[in-house]
Amino acid sequence: MRENEWVRTELGPRHPLVSGGTSRSRLVRALRGERPEVTPVWFMRQAGRSLPEYRELRVGTRMLDACLDPSLAAEITLQPVRRHGVDAAVFFSDIVVPLRLAGVEVEIVPGRGPVFAAPVRTREDVDALVGRDLSGLDDALAPIAEAVRLTVAELAQSDGGATPLIGFAGAPFTLAAYLVEGGPSKDHLAARTLMHSDPDAWRRLLDWLADLTGRFLRAQVLAGASAAQLFDSWAGALSLADYAEHVAPASRRALDPVRELAFAEGSEERRVPLVHFGVGTGELLRAMRDVGVDAVGVDYRIPLDVAAARLGGDVPVQGNADPALLAAGWPALERHVRDVVRRGLAAPAHVFNLGHGVPPTADAEVLTRVVELVHSL
Amino acid sequence: MRENEWVRTELGPRHPLVSGGTSRSRLVRALRGERPEVTPVWFMRQAGRSLPEYRELRVGTRMLDACLDPSLAAEITLQPVRRHGVDAAVFFSDIVVPLRLAGVEVEIVPGRGPVFAAPVRTREDVDALVGRDLSGLDDALAPIAEAVRLTVAELAQSDGGATPLIGFAGAPFTLAAYLVEGGPSKDHLAARTLMHSDPDAWRRLLDWLADLTGRFLRAQVLAGASAAQLFDSWAGALSLADYAEHVAPASRRALDPVRELAFAEGSEERRVPLVHFGVGTGELLRAMRDVGVDAVGVDYRIPLDVAAARLGGDVPVQGNADPALLAAGWPALERHVRDVVRRGLAAPAHVFNLGHGVPPTADAEVLTRVVELVHSL
Repeated sequence: MRENEWVRTELGPRHPLVSGGTSRSRLVRALRGERPEVTPVWFMRQAGRSLPEYRELRVGTRMLDACLDPSLAAEITLQPVRRHGVDAAVFFSDIVVPLRLAGVEVEIVPGRGPVFAAPVRTREDVDALVGRDLSGLDDALAPIAEAVRLTVAELAQSDGGATPLIGFAGAPFTLAAYLVEGGPSKDHLAARTLMHSDPDAWRRLLDWLADLTGRFLRAQVLAGASAAQLFDSWAGALSLADYAEHVAPASRRALDPVRELAFAEGSEERRVPLVHFGVGTGELLRAMRDVGVDAVGVDYRIPLDVAAARLGGDVPVQGNADPALLAAGWPALERHVRDVVRRGLAAPAHVFNLGHGVPPTADAEVLTRVVELVHSL
Repeated sequence: MRENEWVRTELGPRHPLVSGGTSRSRLVRALRGERPEVTPVWFMRQAGRSLPEYRELRVGTRMLDACLDPSLAAEITLQPVRRHGVDAAVFFSDIVVPLRLAGVEVEIVPGRGPVFAAPVRTREDVDALVGRDLSGLDDALAPIAEAVRLTVAELAQSDGGATPLIGFAGAPFTLAAYLVEGGPSKDHLAARTLMHSDPDAWRRLLDWLADLTGRFLRAQVLAGASAAQLFDSWAGALSLADYAEHVAPASRRALDPVRELAFAEGSEERRVPLVHFGVGTGELLRAMRDVGVDAVGVDYRIPLDVAAARLGGDVPVQGNADPALLAAGWPALERHVRDVVRRGLAAPAHVFNLGHGVPPTADAEVLTRVVELVHSL
């Protein structure tokens, strides 16, 4: 590539990363392995039940309906940015949204989670699912793209477009864990059984889910998200061998549609940085990096310096304050936050987060105080 | 100690280990680090819902009532021994039984788990709990001791007393995880918060639970159990640092009452061997060994040879077939079982088990076939 030649792939010139608005943000720089002067912070599930303004807004609206209402989803996405002063918005959605948009009957049951009308248990079930016509999916994704555009426009207005939006999608295994079981389960036994009883059907199921959730994520990035995170919440239920053989290829595939979206200016790459996270995945960190991401989210169970070493010392990490500490009183929490920030120095860069989603019972004011503390260190 | 002098501590001369009945059993030898000619097998939760004869027997009887009915508990304990030809019985009970016997209001809700009438959330709650008068506990434990005696007598009659009974108890942390939350929870957040918000109250709670569950286990050993397993099911929710500081000392304390029970003949120690297990504890294996046990149970997530290496190469391991494979068809299951047995050779000795409890949906005939396969290898 010649110097100073701008090579555009698919992000338009007004995309926040391309226009420069978010490319120098703390979050994007940290995810690319730079260490900004201040450690960026956001919280998984920051847009949600821990915020009184969220609970108020959600009254009378079911979860998936809220996800598919562009102005509601945008407003919910923006609430924690306004309140906490976090360094990124994360798109308010649910990992099963693309399944709903593909015509799969699913509902989020409060206090339980996603419940499917028909579990996908057999080869025949898989065939029926993956045979669905997805030609209308891009139209179906319109409310998602619209919600992202509204969010990014509002961010641009309020702070000059410096705060990036992180795109959100579930990884194929975690989607399959719900889909095969028909709902939440402790060990994801039904899905893990199918993986071994019919590896071929399993692979077709995961590939289909990868394409679906990848297009969901791509739609968010095209509409203005400056980074993207793949949530493989339940990957920690897998052995490394099962993860590497039966899951990782599909997670890589899910990210392909986003990885292709790039914008390069001279030698400076402007690819949308990707993060990968799962609960209890201390044994899987390298394999999760190896699906082709820029940074890895770390669960609260292992210290960030240990995680950084397992990742080879050259991968930015995200995490990993223990959500249990949020309610343990400020002295214990402050010690813990300082410890997390200190251990994060072992990686080339660190995005502060919790090591799991914000608990619904969390005190919003405590979260704000954590942001202030991290920014002050 | 002089040669040939028999030193009795508290196990009577008719205890199966002392009388020689189970001291040369495959299970006891393997847990002591010998490698018997045939790999011993038993299954966590082998006495339970996977057996049609269990489901029939339990009709109309609530879980905790079944645990406290000596002849019923003995019969349920014996069912899988008769059916599968496993190398050990494991005492049918529930980890909250000692709490019930201490007067704590708790019920096992089918499909949910233990639910407490009053969660133990505050320092005051802890004070009220640990202030309970436990002077009547030994009397309250009488049905447990009686169930063990009935089981051991029946084992003695049916096979000359060669099949050992494994005593069963929950570790203090896992008990606290239920007690503080008031019931089952995903991340045991309330308990882990208390651990940090009031470490002193936490320590008193865990010490009290250790003494309680330790006396429950001791009663089983005195009544004839030849080995004992401490189940810290949810220890995998903890970081190593939290486990080592806030949990391990109480688990050690819980085993003290059993560790003291010994019978020595000359130089040959006849201490009841102890096993320690928790789900997802790959990071904690050494710390779990270090509470003072003979063998460590390994979750299905990490291979046994990796676990053996983490344990230093000199600790017998127990485990760790993936329960998800039980329903994956015989060819996949057979490959997996052979792999587990092969990897178990990396430890000084290996007791075959699942890497988690038998799922209620498991096919009992498949379990029997696994026993036959392991015995044939």
